[in-house]
Amino acid sequence: MAENKVNIGIVQTFCSDNKVDNTQRTIKLIRDTAEKGARIICLQELFNTLYFCIEEDYNQFDLAEFQDGPTAQELSKLCAQLKIVLVVPYFEKRTAGLYHNSAIVIDADGKISGNYRKQHIPDDPGYYEKFYFAPGDEGYKVFDTQYGKISVLICWDQWYPEASRIAALKGAEIIFYPTAIGWPVGQDERLNSKEYNAWQTIIKSHAVANGVHTVAVNRTGVEYDNQFWGGSFITDPFGEVLFQAPYTDETYEAIEVDLSQTEYFRRRWPFLRDRRTDTYKPVTKRFID
Amino acid sequence: MAENKVNIGIVQTFCSDNKVDNTQRTIKLIRDTAEKGARIICLQELFNTLYFCIEEDYNQFDLAEFQDGPTAQELSKLCAQLKIVLVVPYFEKRTAGLYHNSAIVIDADGKISGNYRKQHIPDDPGYYEKFYFAPGDEGYKVFDTQYGKISVLICWDQWYPEASRIAALKGAEIIFYPTAIGWPVGQDERLNSKEYNAWQTIIKSHAVANGVHTVAVNRTGVEYDNQFWGGSFITDPFGEVLFQAPYTDETYEAIEVDLSQTEYFRRRWPFLRDRRTDTYKPVTKRFID
Repeated sequence: MAENKVNIGIVQTFCSDNKVDNTQRTIKLIRDTAEKGARIICLQELFNTLYFCIEEDYNQFDLAEFQDGPTAQELSKLCAQLKIVLVVPYFEKRTAGLYHNSAIVIDADGKISGNYRKQHIPDDPGYYEKFYFAPGDEGYKVFDTQYGKISVLICWDQWYPEASRIAALKGAEIIFYPTAIGWPVGQDERLNSKEYNAWQTIIKSHAVANGVHTVAVNRTGVEYDNQFWGGSFITDPFGEVLFQAPYTDETYEAIEVDLSQTEYFRRRWPFLRDRRTDTYKPVTKRFID
Repeated sequence: MAENKVNIGIVQTFCSDNKVDNTQRTIKLIRDTAEKGARIICLQELFNTLYFCIEEDYNQFDLAEFQDGPTAQELSKLCAQLKIVLVVPYFEKRTAGLYHNSAIVIDADGKISGNYRKQHIPDDPGYYEKFYFAPGDEGYKVFDTQYGKISVLICWDQWYPEASRIAALKGAEIIFYPTAIGWPVGQDERLNSKEYNAWQTIIKSHAVANGVHTVAVNRTGVEYDNQFWGGSFITDPFGEVLFQAPYTDETYEAIEVDLSQTEYFRRRWPFLRDRRTDTYKPVTKRFID
């Protein structure tokens, strides 16, 4: 099989309450990552704000932007200039009183390839997302970019094999998981480790089940009493970790992968051939009593 | 939450071409595992024969037994005597010319709780299962045994998140994966390691996605030019490996787990609450062109 190499970049940062500064610092890091050779770069969930879902605060809606808002416009120019594809997770305003947790994908010519709206919305102490975000209503998407067919799933989506499966069935070669997940400050190290490993396991498994590359990009730094655990990583279709970022430092990195590994993996382990699609309807049930 | 402890046993063995001897040696190991405290014991796929699917040979059908055949009867008595639940993977004859790769679950009173027929059937060099086994036509099952609600998925099933999801939605607290998977003799160690890790990753992920315990039981030993890789293991709902067997030795072990971990895990990470069942219909498609 002919090789099909592409260089993937990740940017894992701290955030402050200064959105302009977060954006400009990230742009600097995008430039540095592109300089290292990255052609498709993924940012973290809600990349240029604090993870404001720590509480339910009406004022936070001021942070949201339309799909074609100023952040999108500035980053589109950057993509055209650097000839990079960029995954930009942001707080989306759709209309008055209707908001989403979304990501736009900008192609290497600067055009917006499309917008994905997070489908699975959590609500747990410190992660009050159901207050802020309506669940996505446009399904799972694949973006046919200049450097490959990619899908984006956002944070809580990452725990659902259904989501990655549908992305793969739609042709995704790489699935990106921008995320914001952390440990409560002071939680014991043993549980921290179990949680990180469970998170990495489920994302690795999406690679294995589907024969695709996966890329998880998490924020780092302490916000309120939450230590975001960083640890962004890239896997091949075997779920083998090709790169892993540290937990508590900012990181940017560019890693070359070979998308022909999808064909290699799936020929040897042809899971798609043997799916029992006639037996999967119960997956659409909440529970089977 | 009140603890709900149960002791799980695994038996990982070599097989020869002597079915009677394989059965009697396994019975000895079941007794030893029960002696160590195990209450639910799982055997490996096609536990008392060679992995005969290495070639397409009509004579191998002689090895098959009906659900209530002599092996089932002997093991039922053993279960009643030892007061254990047993997962018995075997070559099932359903009628003339119709065979399955199945597992019976025997309850601790010796009664057969039910029969599961492998749904996903591979066909790859050295694994010519489509010649021998009709795909299961009765769906995924949960067996409500004296020591817990358990599901059984067999080998190739293990790669499919749809199967484990349906088992969990039907109430499984533990999913057992009897299997027969190995490396071609002489394959390089690097690829061996990638394959083993991918296999462990996908099974661990079923624990994480569903908040259940998982138990994988694989055969070991060289048969023809296949080194079955053993490495049977047990995980908690975080996908953390509580016990792992060696690759090339026979092993039996009993490990106590706490089924209340399912409730603990799912309260903290309530994935079942937030499933977007309205968006999963594409999972029933072969591919989405």
